[in-house]
Amino acid sequence: MHRLLSAAASMAVPLLFPGVAVADEAAGITYATQASADTTWLMIAAALVFLMQAGFAFLESGMSRSKNAVNVLMKNLMDCCVGSLLFWCVGYGLMFGLNEGGLFGTSHFMPVQMEAWGYSFLLFQMMFAATAATIASGAMAERTRFGGYLLGAAIITAVIYPVSGSWVWGGFHGGKGWLAELGFIDFAGSTVVHSVGAWCALAGILVVGPRLGRFPRNEKPHALPGHNLNLVTLGGFILWFGWFGFNGGSTAQANVNIGLINLNTQLAACAGALGALLALRLSGQPMLLTGIINGVLGGLVAITAGCATTTPDYAILTGAIGGFIAILGMKLLDAFRLDDVVGAVAVHGFAGAWGTLAAGLFFAEDPFNTYRVMVQVTGIVACFLWAFLSALLMYILIAAFFGLRADPLHEQRGLDITEHAEIGYPEFARQNAYDSDTLNRINR
Amino acid sequence: MHRLLSAAASMAVPLLFPGVAVADEAAGITYATQASADTTWLMIAAALVFLMQAGFAFLESGMSRSKNAVNVLMKNLMDCCVGSLLFWCVGYGLMFGLNEGGLFGTSHFMPVQMEAWGYSFLLFQMMFAATAATIASGAMAERTRFGGYLLGAAIITAVIYPVSGSWVWGGFHGGKGWLAELGFIDFAGSTVVHSVGAWCALAGILVVGPRLGRFPRNEKPHALPGHNLNLVTLGGFILWFGWFGFNGGSTAQANVNIGLINLNTQLAACAGALGALLALRLSGQPMLLTGIINGVLGGLVAITAGCATTTPDYAILTGAIGGFIAILGMKLLDAFRLDDVVGAVAVHGFAGAWGTLAAGLFFAEDPFNTYRVMVQVTGIVACFLWAFLSALLMYILIAAFFGLRADPLHEQRGLDITEHAEIGYPEFARQNAYDSDTLNRINR
Amino acid sequence: MHRLLSAAASMAVPLLFPGVAVADEAAGITYATQASADTTWLMIAAALVFLMQAGFAFLESGMSRSKNAVNVLMKNLMDCCVGSLLFWCVGYGLMFGLNEGGLFGTSHFMPVQMEAWGYSFLLFQMMFAATAATIASGAMAERTRFGGYLLGAAIITAVIYPVSGSWVWGGFHGGKGWLAELGFIDFAGSTVVHSVGAWCALAGILVVGPRLGRFPRNEKPHALPGHNLNLVTLGGFILWFGWFGFNGGSTAQANVNIGLINLNTQLAACAGALGALLALRLSGQPMLLTGIINGVLGGLVAITAGCATTTPDYAILTGAIGGFIAILGMKLLDAFRLDDVVGAVAVHGFAGAWGTLAAGLFFAEDPFNTYRVMVQVTGIVACFLWAFLSALLMYILIAAFFGLRADPLHEQRGLDITEHAEIGYPEFARQNAYDSDTLNRINR
Repeated sequence: MHRLLSAAASMAVPLLFPGVAVADEAAGITYATQASADTTWLMIAAALVFLMQAGFAFLESGMSRSKNAVNVLMKNLMDCCVGSLLFWCVGYGLMFGLNEGGLFGTSHFMPVQMEAWGYSFLLFQMMFAATAATIASGAMAERTRFGGYLLGAAIITAVIYPVSGSWVWGGFHGGKGWLAELGFIDFAGSTVVHSVGAWCALAGILVVGPRLGRFPRNEKPHALPGHNLNLVTLGGFILWFGWFGFNGGSTAQANVNIGLINLNTQLAACAGALGALLALRLSGQPMLLTGIINGVLGGLVAITAGCATTTPDYAILTGAIGGFIAILGMKLLDAFRLDDVVGAVAVHGFAGAWGTLAAGLFFAEDPFNTYRVMVQVTGIVACFLWAFLSALLMYILIAAFFGLRADPLHEQRGLDITEHAEIGYPEFARQNAYDSDTLNRINR
Repeated sequence: MHRLLSAAASMAVPLLFPGVAVADEAAGITYATQASADTTWLMIAAALVFLMQAGFAFLESGMSRSKNAVNVLMKNLMDCCVGSLLFWCVGYGLMFGLNEGGLFGTSHFMPVQMEAWGYSFLLFQMMFAATAATIASGAMAERTRFGGYLLGAAIITAVIYPVSGSWVWGGFHGGKGWLAELGFIDFAGSTVVHSVGAWCALAGILVVGPRLGRFPRNEKPHALPGHNLNLVTLGGFILWFGWFGFNGGSTAQANVNIGLINLNTQLAACAGALGALLALRLSGQPMLLTGIINGVLGGLVAITAGCATTTPDYAILTGAIGGFIAILGMKLLDAFRLDDVVGAVAVHGFAGAWGTLAAGLFFAEDPFNTYRVMVQVTGIVACFLWAFLSALLMYILIAAFFGLRADPLHEQRGLDITEHAEIGYPEFARQNAYDSDTLNRINR
Repeated sequence: MHRLLSAAASMAVPLLFPGVAVADEAAGITYATQASADTTWLMIAAALVFLMQAGFAFLESGMSRSKNAVNVLMKNLMDCCVGSLLFWCVGYGLMFGLNEGGLFGTSHFMPVQMEAWGYSFLLFQMMFAATAATIASGAMAERTRFGGYLLGAAIITAVIYPVSGSWVWGGFHGGKGWLAELGFIDFAGSTVVHSVGAWCALAGILVVGPRLGRFPRNEKPHALPGHNLNLVTLGGFILWFGWFGFNGGSTAQANVNIGLINLNTQLAACAGALGALLALRLSGQPMLLTGIINGVLGGLVAITAGCATTTPDYAILTGAIGGFIAILGMKLLDAFRLDDVVGAVAVHGFAGAWGTLAAGLFFAEDPFNTYRVMVQVTGIVACFLWAFLSALLMYILIAAFFGLRADPLHEQRGLDITEHAEIGYPEFARQNAYDSDTLNRINR
């Protein structure tokens, strides 16, 4: 290994390192060690958050029919690639650049030369941006054109996510967001990442419409079961694993708080499963694996805002209600004939809004403070309005000028063969089974 | 990200941090940095051990027939959720609470307010408890009712695992376990975690009985091949990956010993594959992928006790014998007509007992010391008696008052459809193929 | 957990710890903390690089036909096991032992007693060696005998990889490699690991020949599509994830440079996808998922050499060209009727050579320096000659005296059933479909 930079680097003390709080010349190496510990922790956390891309990909692919598996995977892969590059170009500057008005940042676009810590911070934040963008892919799966989807994901990562993000986390390079000024609490992004992604997804499914055969006229909603529940579970486990980096890494430094943060994360996830189980029972559904997984994810989304500022008992309560909401939210969407393939709007949107509220209600030092709760509600509503309305406009424009909905014949054949000339399981696929089924449903 | 706690936290020096051994006022930040390094390492290790839940889930699902895939996944998912919550409620206190008699702990139930380090330690131990509990799920797969299984797993995590665990690792909040007093060596849990889990599994398969068609009357045992060997291999790789956190994290601090520990872990895993290959040859079996994976796992289980106190050459020997034992152990269970779907009793039980013995035999500073070996045998036997007998009683009671064995018609149709109303691969499944096969076998 | 070693260990300051640069008695604990941070970072990175074995296994299994899935998995599993043990026996000493002549090391074979840091370093390097060896498995899949393949992989890990590796990274225990003396830059192994593995693979596919039916006489090359694209994508994501340890861990210490290194890694991967997309368009191919994944991997391979010494903008350029080369390289191999099942030679070889060149061209402190570029070319050519020619000789000897190519009837039935008596998906497999297809192709 080339060691050109290493000797000098381990002695350097970049000004921005958050864990280095005391100045003392003799202790130069100490600061370097804390800076090293901060860097390695953030880089591990970034890798875990990156892996959540795979989690989303497999959850969504498994929940889709096999004729769309490749298309789902491609959307997840490419939104990460395009999104990461655009976040470096534009999004990072909008979110973390100099933010004097509190509305968005205005510096650090396409950054090439930064303090050492800046590169780590940028990479970690890039992974977050990619997470927010990919939430829509699952909701809109199986009937959205690849090009239209990707254009939308690019705009979300480059503009929509960074702007509302700057309100809460902005000002890394100077200034402060207006929601942060009010005291809004969203430690790791129940609202900033998950709800914002989900409100974009909600706009997307409104514009693109439900899958063929999902809501037959004068009939109950018709479930279109996912083709591979092992894959769904793999996705769920990977997301859960990644969340320890998502929440734990949001300290943006190596410190002892990470223990409480990740303990709360684990307890909320587990409680989310129980909340979902209760909701399944109350709504007369069987003990569905897919339901339990969405319950776990609902618990995780809910604890994300308050994981650093609440106690384990309240974390369990937050998670349980998050899981409960995830299941009932899916029922609600069905009632409005909104077709969300994986339940992303319920899991990331509704449970995220609840979690943001819970972070205010269960704030350990000062729980149930009315002012704090009002600030949380303000943040939830403001981010909803921004993300939903801008994404709605965006998808309407994409649909009008570029094309968003796949051709019905393509949808019936499956987007894998029509958009990518590849199929997921060439030796096993029974492509026609679902096509004729869908066909009958439409002709009826 | 909210930074409320961070500035103060990085300066705090909780008394319990293990890596902070010297007191010196001027060096406050140094202790904070070591505490941060300890925390981040333990949190990473905890995440890796968590991921082992996914490893077990996919190994077991792949080794089962597809008609039970969802059921297997659900058991793995729910035992983690219920187990984690109960470990927080009861298990942690029993295992690590004030332990004056040396038999079990009596404080720290449902802990809400702890030193910062306590949260990290609790989360790491929670992941271990979940690992122990889930071992039984694979052995008992494909014919055990979901509710009965889950009740058993809950009791294992809450009571059975913590009690014997307290004998060896107890006294974190004061006191010391009786086996620790004797000098029993089990660094990361060949006995404490793996064998205890496996002895519970052994009790379970005794009570629940073999799958229909597994041991036809007057015939050789009939293999019921797993439905997806890619999934089995995924599970195996994830477990191997997680083991670097399982063994390396058992330092419970960031220190330089982790290098030797994880090197020994890797060498033993690799040697386990060769040991298994030899055992397959000697027992006249082909070069089975499933056998090699169980050999790797046998090697890993075996080195777990002694990974910190043995040298690489002995680690290779320990692992090779562990892999050898895993394969022959499965033959032995077959001879007794005990149906262990994944070979968990052989891999975690027999190889774990061997590894615990090997940790005494190959103790680097003082190998082949008779007293030490006798202490190891004492620990192996004591933990076997406690775990096996208490689990036997438990499963008998569950079978009598709650129900443990699935209805034969449910078993034939597969537990996915009968317990969860979901199937793993709705587009590919040929449910009937195995049903009629099994049916013929029974009618014969 | 047993704490025998811990108290002493956290105070020890092994001489070799790279992050500990200044001597000062009062700061003993500081050095210990830096040493702990170095160890934990390297052990995490080693675990991530280990997981890349799983990435290769699933990428290759998914790209093969289902009748060879078990065989592919076995090769990946066993080359890791045998390779790790042999690297400990022989390879480590050849690569990092005392290296006075600059050609190979001559000490530290089968090391049992080392400084604490030595164990960590050995484990990390063991994972790298296993990576290099496994590259050939994908290229040669579906028609290579298990025994012959494994023998080749063993020799690569024990001899071929360590010798050229010592030229660049050697001398850890004294001395320096001749390429390092010249100033050759290959931070994490675009050439040392990836190209060397790929040149061995190229020799392998030359000797073993193409799969039956891949290049029908007087016809265009015939694609034999992989059986499971979800599995391919899983492999791709795992490799990408592991690369953050592969590149980031090559600092061999915890320091602040890891931020830039992993940011460059991520940007190059993303740009690789876009480079591949362009190449697919220009060569008239559809938007293939498998192509995009190879583009990402091409970008990752390319940035590996220069990730620590280039800036983000050049990292994007390096990655984009890497992805472009990966796609066109596969076309080139087709033109020469060389059958590389997964495109390993193009991805790891061609993109690796490009990346090594790019590390010279885009060296941040002094870009486009002619001397530096000439040194890079020298290293690329020298490593190609050594690895390709020695592997060619090796595979010729294996083919002559041991057997390398599977029997045609075995190849048609699939190596799973003929070599391992196991099949990947016993409930779903339609073994005959491809056999008759292949048969017709041959008989024509």
